[in-house]
Amino acid sequence: MGAALALAARGRGRTSPNPPVGCVIVSDGAVVGRGWTQPSGRPHAEAMALAEAGERARGATAYVTLEPCAHVSPRGPACADLLVAARVGRVVAAVGDPDPRTNGAGLARLAAAGIATASGVRVDEARAAMAGFLTRLAKGRPHVTLKLATSLDGCIARASGESRWITGPEARAHVHLERSRHEAILVGRGTWEADHPRLDVRLPGLEPRAPRRVVLSGTLPLGRADEPAVIDSPPAITSLPGDHLFVEGGAGAASAFLTADLVDRLLLYRAPILIGGGRPALGDIGLESLADAHGRWTLVDSRQLGSDRLEVYERSQCSRESSPT
Amino acid sequence: MGAALALAARGRGRTSPNPPVGCVIVSDGAVVGRGWTQPSGRPHAEAMALAEAGERARGATAYVTLEPCAHVSPRGPACADLLVAARVGRVVAAVGDPDPRTNGAGLARLAAAGIATASGVRVDEARAAMAGFLTRLAKGRPHVTLKLATSLDGCIARASGESRWITGPEARAHVHLERSRHEAILVGRGTWEADHPRLDVRLPGLEPRAPRRVVLSGTLPLGRADEPAVIDSPPAITSLPGDHLFVEGGAGAASAFLTADLVDRLLLYRAPILIGGGRPALGDIGLESLADAHGRWTLVDSRQLGSDRLEVYERSQCSRESSPT
Repeated sequence: MGAALALAARGRGRTSPNPPVGCVIVSDGAVVGRGWTQPSGRPHAEAMALAEAGERARGATAYVTLEPCAHVSPRGPACADLLVAARVGRVVAAVGDPDPRTNGAGLARLAAAGIATASGVRVDEARAAMAGFLTRLAKGRPHVTLKLATSLDGCIARASGESRWITGPEARAHVHLERSRHEAILVGRGTWEADHPRLDVRLPGLEPRAPRRVVLSGTLPLGRADEPAVIDSPPAITSLPGDHLFVEGGAGAASAFLTADLVDRLLLYRAPILIGGGRPALGDIGLESLADAHGRWTLVDSRQLGSDRLEVYERSQCSRESSPT
Repeated sequence: MGAALALAARGRGRTSPNPPVGCVIVSDGAVVGRGWTQPSGRPHAEAMALAEAGERARGATAYVTLEPCAHVSPRGPACADLLVAARVGRVVAAVGDPDPRTNGAGLARLAAAGIATASGVRVDEARAAMAGFLTRLAKGRPHVTLKLATSLDGCIARASGESRWITGPEARAHVHLERSRHEAILVGRGTWEADHPRLDVRLPGLEPRAPRRVVLSGTLPLGRADEPAVIDSPPAITSLPGDHLFVEGGAGAASAFLTADLVDRLLLYRAPILIGGGRPALGDIGLESLADAHGRWTLVDSRQLGSDRLEVYERSQCSRESSPT
């Protein structure tokens, strides 16, 4: 299942409207097929892995990060039917598919065909891998990652506006990697007009994975009609294509998304420098007391990137999200 | 030597004008004596360890974090003489004593008495344990630790001034432990007048180790003549007693010490919260470009304290310190 999860990650940011899924088929202790959801969501991971395995799938075990789908669509066959036809011996799914067209029906169809099934394996990791899909399904909006790059004292620039560079090349390369995992990237109008950022992915081999550029601007339009896309407020992200939105700056856009309680994941890149009296990372976010600030964020990862530290926080499970307005 | 270093740490903040030193005497593989510099600097670590070892010191190895002193003072005998008289077989010193009254003479006297000597063992740790002593010797001022306790976005309070609590009880207890390791603790006049902080050590058993309170205030006097002490600018710390100064806040005092380039060690306690638009940890610190901000601080330790993170930075070896003015 670990290998299947790693394969699932390959599709992140490109499989919408489908979730990024991974599949590994094992026969007699050897991997005979590997698959992951392809761009735009088809073929599914199981179809790709079965195609690779061919006849060797017979009697094998398929590990898949999401319950195989039970519904035939104009875009492809039902994976449960493919697995039955390939006569696999056993299917292990990390989690059930909450899509109402499947929702248990995939595993049921396998079981009805005499295939052993199991689920509930590495559930948290599987959910994390599909966070965009699950957020879209549950909340009707993309999963939102906010990036902040600051000094130790929380500044994103000197008072003069000088901001190049706070973090080093390793941290900046990591930001580009994160961009490649999102369908859309957003900056505020101030950042857009001041910097005209390219917001692309400048990493060898990943250049084609640049996300769609979006500007948050209360006053439409920006000028050119089609590029970038423009939304007038954070709740309007429901209209954006894709299941993953990367909010990259500046302080105004970051604060607007936090005020709207529309940030699911926080990437905090910190350089070991002090600026003093610089431009703060955030403006007012509507906090009414310090007590309200606690318990909202959980540290899920941290790592060294050159001389900088990356900390990844996620919205705490118990945290409230305000209702859409 | 590791055990000797741990013993040395016991004296930190109480041994001025002497450095905190640790000593372990080992005979036939067993520890027969342990000592560390006592409050106000006497007895020395070696004297305490030899007293414990008694006759068992004969032929034993003494591990000491600093070269034994060669000079007799009105306050006590020379440790080199004590070791010779005890007829130890071997003395291992972590580092030489830069005090001009010793500076190699201690080890030389031991060698002249036929005692085997060695030095240069765990040098960096030994120097770190004596940072206050070495700073006073080299720069004529105490070693300065600056404490900052912030949110992830670098705030020390909400815009309203609300600052209780950003960090949790574990982090606050750690601050009290750090206080106990310093002879003096400083806050700015604004913090003093707003909060009337006790600045004591509220940890069981360490209550007597509260540092001397000092207020940074351009306008003298504060009122009561003797408590707290008052200095009018950061360079005036040369007049403070003790070799360790803890600068605890607020932003004005922190910024003044950073502007004067008089911070040797930075304790950054960070709570996993976002405040947004709050009071920044620092005001202007005289930074003229981002390039000048880099390379000044090196992360030397980090740890989890409840839900908070502590990061310890030290002045980088290559960093410049401005001349006293």
